[in-house]
Amino acid sequence: MNGAESLIHTLVAGEVDTCFANPGTSEMHFVSALDRVEGVKCVLGLSEIVVTGCADGYGRMRGRPAATLLHCGPGFTNGIANIHNARRALTPMLNIVGDHATYHRVFDAPLTSDLEGFAKSASHWVRSSVAASTVGADCAAAIKAANTAPGQIATLILPADTAWGEGGEVGLVQAAPTRRLVDEPTVAAVAAQIKVGGPTIFVLFGQALSEAGLVAANRVAHISGAKLKTNAQVSRMARGRGRVPVDRIPYSIDSALKVFEGVKNIILVGAKAPTAFFAYPNKPSLIAPKGSQTSVLARQDEDSIAALNALADFLGAPVNVPIPVDTRKPEILSGPFDPEAFALTFAALLPENAIVCEDAVTSGRALFAPTFNAAPNDWLQNTGGAIGFAFPCATGAAVASPGRKVVCLQADGAGMYSLQSLWTQVREQLDIVNVVFANSVYKILYGELLAVGAEPGRASNELFDLSRPHLDWVSLATGMGMESVSVNTLDAFADVFKSACNRRGPFLIEFKI
Amino acid sequence: MNGAESLIHTLVAGEVDTCFANPGTSEMHFVSALDRVEGVKCVLGLSEIVVTGCADGYGRMRGRPAATLLHCGPGFTNGIANIHNARRALTPMLNIVGDHATYHRVFDAPLTSDLEGFAKSASHWVRSSVAASTVGADCAAAIKAANTAPGQIATLILPADTAWGEGGEVGLVQAAPTRRLVDEPTVAAVAAQIKVGGPTIFVLFGQALSEAGLVAANRVAHISGAKLKTNAQVSRMARGRGRVPVDRIPYSIDSALKVFEGVKNIILVGAKAPTAFFAYPNKPSLIAPKGSQTSVLARQDEDSIAALNALADFLGAPVNVPIPVDTRKPEILSGPFDPEAFALTFAALLPENAIVCEDAVTSGRALFAPTFNAAPNDWLQNTGGAIGFAFPCATGAAVASPGRKVVCLQADGAGMYSLQSLWTQVREQLDIVNVVFANSVYKILYGELLAVGAEPGRASNELFDLSRPHLDWVSLATGMGMESVSVNTLDAFADVFKSACNRRGPFLIEFKI
Repeated sequence: MNGAESLIHTLVAGEVDTCFANPGTSEMHFVSALDRVEGVKCVLGLSEIVVTGCADGYGRMRGRPAATLLHCGPGFTNGIANIHNARRALTPMLNIVGDHATYHRVFDAPLTSDLEGFAKSASHWVRSSVAASTVGADCAAAIKAANTAPGQIATLILPADTAWGEGGEVGLVQAAPTRRLVDEPTVAAVAAQIKVGGPTIFVLFGQALSEAGLVAANRVAHISGAKLKTNAQVSRMARGRGRVPVDRIPYSIDSALKVFEGVKNIILVGAKAPTAFFAYPNKPSLIAPKGSQTSVLARQDEDSIAALNALADFLGAPVNVPIPVDTRKPEILSGPFDPEAFALTFAALLPENAIVCEDAVTSGRALFAPTFNAAPNDWLQNTGGAIGFAFPCATGAAVASPGRKVVCLQADGAGMYSLQSLWTQVREQLDIVNVVFANSVYKILYGELLAVGAEPGRASNELFDLSRPHLDWVSLATGMGMESVSVNTLDAFADVFKSACNRRGPFLIEFKI
Repeated sequence: MNGAESLIHTLVAGEVDTCFANPGTSEMHFVSALDRVEGVKCVLGLSEIVVTGCADGYGRMRGRPAATLLHCGPGFTNGIANIHNARRALTPMLNIVGDHATYHRVFDAPLTSDLEGFAKSASHWVRSSVAASTVGADCAAAIKAANTAPGQIATLILPADTAWGEGGEVGLVQAAPTRRLVDEPTVAAVAAQIKVGGPTIFVLFGQALSEAGLVAANRVAHISGAKLKTNAQVSRMARGRGRVPVDRIPYSIDSALKVFEGVKNIILVGAKAPTAFFAYPNKPSLIAPKGSQTSVLARQDEDSIAALNALADFLGAPVNVPIPVDTRKPEILSGPFDPEAFALTFAALLPENAIVCEDAVTSGRALFAPTFNAAPNDWLQNTGGAIGFAFPCATGAAVASPGRKVVCLQADGAGMYSLQSLWTQVREQLDIVNVVFANSVYKILYGELLAVGAEPGRASNELFDLSRPHLDWVSLATGMGMESVSVNTLDAFADVFKSACNRRGPFLIEFKI
């Protein structure tokens, strides 16, 4: 057994059965081993931003890592943007990066680069195998690292000679550290803090946004009167009718500050302290108002659901409390695109148990609250701010979730970063409806320019405009074999979206706005 | 004057007048300063692999750096692949990367990453400005670093508050260290080595492949009987009729070893010691045969032209020696694609003084020698092996070279990495004919799989195939506003290529092979 074969046997043993890949020469023994060893499904992406974004979507839906197969330093760095987003989403991910043979590195062949440096800057865990005999054990350690709560980025560098060398041994995959339980003094301290009084906001993220987490949080809110919020972007959230309707902290710093005005207690549950997404002159970095106290009920590697239930119990909340009902009614509206009208229309049309991957940027600002009463769904967002997220994340989520409809809401400017994802969707015949919001501008940047106190001029108009030349998403989709339609009214969108949802397979709707 | 304004004034003072950009919020003050300070032309790219590839092409043609404007860690890492290629090409490049305000970093907002770590791994020179007052000086130092012979990657990190802060001062741009002259003992030692006898190969790269460098090398070859070769990939080479026809060392390790069989002396002129592109089991990493001696006539930061002329003088070569004439005749051939036939056809059609950006991979293996008798041209290749090179390199080369026709020869698999470049070509109405070799397969990988001793099977066929779904390059080009035509014979190619060369502006030819 060579090193590459030991690697694949170890992946299979560790339940890593899906590999998103764009291999090169240094990965040929790995590829060849895949020809001989069963158990790992490979999905090809036409650039690494697609490959890693797929692994993010997969990991979010499965709760265990997909592997990626990447080629040397440039292949790895091409994928860092979506590794970054995955890291921020607490997604487990296992990157396998082929590199030059150990003895070849010193000769500085053209593809030689500081791969280990890049990997260290991007990952929680990095190891470079030194011999075929250790590859299996290295892979087992990588799987454990990726599965370590709450989910980590593990990167295993595989020099070509450790892949082709004989003497491989299958690694023993050990159980990864699971979420720690929050201790009682922490629960008691949070209870004491919120009992002192004053407005309280719980900020929920990660596990706390699962259906069970939301139910537990709702118990706390019910007994304490505290408000529930999510961070500005969620990694995955159980949403729709019957789920606790928790709104997110607005992206805009001024709106976010307004939400927290007068708040005394901020309790973090698997969440980071809310910050401004960017710094702006004369505005604070942290959203928490002066005089408020921020406490942690559960860290990201702790059991948020258990902590919320323990707090609810401590406060004397009943086990079953009514789930608040949001009053916004989904309805199919007509006319040109408007963010709120689109959201209500979308809420009316979303099929049951769908997965929504959303990176609609400015077109999606109003999406969250009006979709509280959509059919139950899982909603995934861009947690790291690196654009090019939704197309590949939707692709990976669909690979992870056969039988569920995936809806990808993608802004056009961000979509151009990873449009190659559409090809993989067609190749794998994934059940995804892509909606591209084609406003032909980096609209968010106009807002940001104003937010930093500047006015648009010659250069900014040149750098924000996407209308010259026109991006024709129907042609782009056609070029990758995907059926598509362009619409410019809500009515037309509703018709097309409905029929796209009633069939299976990939589809793209360009919404000109 | 704020920091951003001081930066732009310093760029203008340092003759950095072109900026390839994809900005985000942390760069808004830079963009706003561009609105007020004249002198820097901005070119938008729809992903950073485009942006940095453009800067590479620009730097190769101008011999001085373009700036790039990139957004935080993910924006920078998206561009590393083509920074890597540029680094290997010795291209001067100045990356300006906006980052969070200095005081904002500690709060770990979503886009926070180890930007400095990434930059250090990818660049020759990195600095992160600490205050508005130092930005101008930092920029001046970055320009000097980028211009330092033979050309370097300089990365300046610009935290948002150093851009918006007042107290900016224009930096004093100092002359960068130029190429050092090779000393006489080195020249004498090389002369002595080749006089001892035995077959000699000079390996030329960089400056040695300019017209003057080739003329000087030809004097040496004429007097000594030595052979001239280039590295497997050239950064820029003066080619075509009237230029010294120097062939490259083959990519394939076996072919390369054959070229060097029996060679006693290997003299490096701005070149690295030839290596196998990758390591293969039981094959050497270095191409030099046992018993040969490798010497350096000129290092990459030394004056190769002066060194070659000094050696020619030392050996008593006349100043003017005849330039060898290659006998291969360009001619327009017919029938389906064949690498050699295409090359001869292309040689017959290439317009005078064109710039050829070539990343045709397997379809281009036979391109070099049959084009010795094309019209005089500059030929640029992928020196770093990171794919996604030619489309953006051609784009930047065209921005750098108004009045010259640029021809981009791009393999389809590699082209999918940076197809967004086509949009920038249309936006800037650049005079580029793109030829896409659509073989619908990562063909090189089949060869590599065999080279490592394996046979294609289920997984490898799955991971190398690009035909399912079909990539339709005419639709892809149409989606970005570019006129295009698909051909599948050499005759049809010749007709379309001729007419594309007789007009101005961007065009794409899909050659189905």
